[in-house]
Amino acid sequence: MPTHQPDLKTPCWAVIFTSVRTDADNGYAETAGRMLELARSMPGFLGVDSAREEVGITVSYWESLDAIRVWREHPEHRTAQARGRREWYASFTTRVCRVERETRFP
Amino acid sequence: MPTHQPDLKTPCWAVIFTSVRTDADNGYAETAGRMLELARSMPGFLGVDSAREEVGITVSYWESLDAIRVWREHPEHRTAQARGRREWYASFTTRVCRVERETRFP
Repeated sequence: MPTHQPDLKTPCWAVIFTSVRTDADNGYAETAGRMLELARSMPGFLGVDSAREEVGITVSYWESLDAIRVWREHPEHRTAQARGRREWYASFTTRVCRVERETRFP
Repeated sequence: MPTHQPDLKTPCWAVIFTSVRTDADNGYAETAGRMLELARSMPGFLGVDSAREEVGITVSYWESLDAIRVWREHPEHRTAQARGRREWYASFTTRVCRVERETRFP
């Protein structure tokens, strides 16, 4: 499901995760898929969009800052984050944002 | 320049533009490149990241809501927006967000 149009009730929250990958694979795609599945099961999760070319961008949407905190601290996610730093990402930036308004077409 | 790590002073503002393309080309890449060049020349522009797979995601960063408004209303940008609706995009969503905090690695 491309969720580029989740039916957001603004205000809500977005986490913009931008990254540059290393050459290492070591189960990256598998873990990324599992994290997506896990995120979708979290309370307060609203949707996610993801694309990668030179830079990878994943934007996930959440009902509250608390939902983001719980997701960030999920033990399986923590383990993946540590591997990400060690193996998969040359660099990344995580930005927590408050979605103020939304315009859709059509 | 992949600007996935612009040196943002938070709070600042992000515009998350997610889209699904039509099959029409008609100068899309040329206009997209020109819009990027134009955005970079605007006052209050801080950086941009872009990637497209199934969904395209472009996130641009701005110093203020006013800078975003001026960019949205730029005549050349307006013309491109109209062509986007008519020719290039099956659907899109624009979300204006306030960036509250940022974490970087390394």
